[in-house]
Amino acid sequence: MELLETLGKQAKEASSELAILDTYKKNRALNFVADALEFCEEELLESNEMDIQNGKKNGMSEALLDRLTLTKERIKAMADGIRQIVQLEDPIGEVLSMKQRENGLLIGQKRVPLGVVGIIYESRPNVTADAFALCFKAGNAVILRGGKDAIHSNTAIMEVIQGALAECNVNKNSIQLVTDTSHEVANQMMKLNGYIDVLIPRGGAGLIKAVVQNSTVPVIETGTGNCHIYVDEFADLEKAIPIIVNAKTQRLGTCNTCESLVVHEEIANKAIPLIVDALVEKGVEIRGDKRSKEIDVRIQDATEEDYGMEYLDRIISLKVVESLKEAIAHINRYNTGHSEAIITEHYGNAQRFLNEIDAAAVYVNASTRFTDGFEFGFGAEIGISTQKLHARGPMGLLALTSTKYIIYGDGQIRQ
Amino acid sequence: MELLETLGKQAKEASSELAILDTYKKNRALNFVADALEFCEEELLESNEMDIQNGKKNGMSEALLDRLTLTKERIKAMADGIRQIVQLEDPIGEVLSMKQRENGLLIGQKRVPLGVVGIIYESRPNVTADAFALCFKAGNAVILRGGKDAIHSNTAIMEVIQGALAECNVNKNSIQLVTDTSHEVANQMMKLNGYIDVLIPRGGAGLIKAVVQNSTVPVIETGTGNCHIYVDEFADLEKAIPIIVNAKTQRLGTCNTCESLVVHEEIANKAIPLIVDALVEKGVEIRGDKRSKEIDVRIQDATEEDYGMEYLDRIISLKVVESLKEAIAHINRYNTGHSEAIITEHYGNAQRFLNEIDAAAVYVNASTRFTDGFEFGFGAEIGISTQKLHARGPMGLLALTSTKYIIYGDGQIRQ
Repeated sequence: MELLETLGKQAKEASSELAILDTYKKNRALNFVADALEFCEEELLESNEMDIQNGKKNGMSEALLDRLTLTKERIKAMADGIRQIVQLEDPIGEVLSMKQRENGLLIGQKRVPLGVVGIIYESRPNVTADAFALCFKAGNAVILRGGKDAIHSNTAIMEVIQGALAECNVNKNSIQLVTDTSHEVANQMMKLNGYIDVLIPRGGAGLIKAVVQNSTVPVIETGTGNCHIYVDEFADLEKAIPIIVNAKTQRLGTCNTCESLVVHEEIANKAIPLIVDALVEKGVEIRGDKRSKEIDVRIQDATEEDYGMEYLDRIISLKVVESLKEAIAHINRYNTGHSEAIITEHYGNAQRFLNEIDAAAVYVNASTRFTDGFEFGFGAEIGISTQKLHARGPMGLLALTSTKYIIYGDGQIRQ
Repeated sequence: MELLETLGKQAKEASSELAILDTYKKNRALNFVADALEFCEEELLESNEMDIQNGKKNGMSEALLDRLTLTKERIKAMADGIRQIVQLEDPIGEVLSMKQRENGLLIGQKRVPLGVVGIIYESRPNVTADAFALCFKAGNAVILRGGKDAIHSNTAIMEVIQGALAECNVNKNSIQLVTDTSHEVANQMMKLNGYIDVLIPRGGAGLIKAVVQNSTVPVIETGTGNCHIYVDEFADLEKAIPIIVNAKTQRLGTCNTCESLVVHEEIANKAIPLIVDALVEKGVEIRGDKRSKEIDVRIQDATEEDYGMEYLDRIISLKVVESLKEAIAHINRYNTGHSEAIITEHYGNAQRFLNEIDAAAVYVNASTRFTDGFEFGFGAEIGISTQKLHARGPMGLLALTSTKYIIYGDGQIRQ
């Protein structure tokens, strides 16, 4: 606990300095950090090579090795990402509303940083720079705990950032890395109340579950998406098929990828063969219920479990329903509160789906793949919240802020 | 766990009905509930009498017995409280912003209910009706777990409310009470992820700590307030003294009561004797540091612990500081993120205090006692949040809502 308490105290100190740093100084420091990352390219590549060698020794998969790898281009992209964050409007200091009460008190609500943000993430080292820059722009200090696999890369990136901050006379503890990557220390971090104001896990379902289960610090739950597309009886199949193919296959491993189809029985005979044609062509296996299998023999058996799966793979589940009501009930039962879409030309059905589906993002006639901070126009993304508290859906800079009430008085006392 | 899962499932069902109930129907049901509470007065008083008798048998203190007691007047106040909530604007359904993206997608953010709210509270039975009505107005189902001492009163109130809801054809499980008041069941409630969207503890420091420590469901931390008043060297003492007396003594047991004074050394010789005069007259004991004791012999010794205490009693701590900077550092170290005030006529000092103090409500020249949903003009209060996530400060109806993104498309797929 000693290590973490030290990090916590240093972060809190840094956060109180960051809270009152003006936008000019924050942007200057971010530009400095971006330049430094490019300048220290060789150093970063050398450290990354150590992680790569260790990964190969430990039999890491090709896909994971690729995520872990830094290249000159990726370092440049990392630096450019920070420069984009410089361009974003600084959310801090805005007074959201200010009203005078009958007793003359002037009460305003002002946007302020969260304070200290903890981020627990997995193997991609670019998250280190990216998460720091977003938190920093919103005036927060950050404590990062990355994966063991990327420890050399993450440490090198942190050191470059700390060096650049120090040169700008900004508290270098605005970014700190937990270098002990044991589970024990991660668990301690989840209980660092009083030092960490919010914890954001970024990674797979296992990581997120562990953080939600063990953390006493407030958590923003991100991530897992069992996203549905419902093909209504009034669907335009010319829109439905491209949307389904896009939502399932454009990228398999993302949380906004479609994992399950729901089809109205009135359109099933016509729609299902077309859907199966298009998906089979992309190598996708379809697992459906009894009725769907009667329509198309290429459909495999779906079990109850399939409807709850986030496959992140070339598999999709399918269910035929008798009504919009049944579709909504099915989706609200199995979804993870991420992104759900209806394909329909029927006004009332579209509105009802938007109203009754309980999820962060609900679509009419568009691909679920749009649930993303950049696609939503935030210019950045720290993750996608699937909880209802604080922030829901793609989180940009605003999700990294809180508010405080400021009250101007003139001697008022309460009666 | 079975009991709670049943409650959870029923609450979720009710919440999906409530989410789409229009304002007219919600208000009609609330008026019905208010009338029913008055109509069933005798029944409620009888049940309450059982709790009172048990309390007396168990040697409950006068103060606690008073909090537990229902009277005709208090039942009327409870009903009138609900009628006031009817008057409040319904927050649900507002679209906070809607923008068209370059690809034609129309993306809006709509205010929706949280879903199922869990509330764990102590002995005041009026919380049962009050918390239900606020949650209901914002479209949420509520699962209440009150104190053992008030179980008969709470059960009776819940039954009257459920009866009134049923008569209006509203799902009666919009309010449910956990009738098993064991700690074991409370702990299970704190882990009811998937059924409860947010848990709000209302009560003393012990209860709140237990919920924060044990809950895996997202929590809004309410409550404890170690509130400070800083008397700046440029303070107008004609304002300072009444504000200090009001903030300390108007009500001793509330979280926005002032528990600690910080006085600038330049004004200490003049201010401290006046402050002590005024507080001693109200029977308040002052515990100060060495320098303050040299100024006024009526001041007792303060230990380090005193500066961290929320006394909720006729005691206040006092510290003399050399500068505004030291005052801010002291307050940011010991405060609980609730309410802090500066008394000053100096423009720059006022602004700096507002900027640098980290708390839910920061005041210039006014009593900390104003931190309250009614005083802030929200027309209601479900508690005062001392955390930075989701809601900070007094929480009205808005704090009981979330948002979802609604997206109108026309066949868009992601490139």
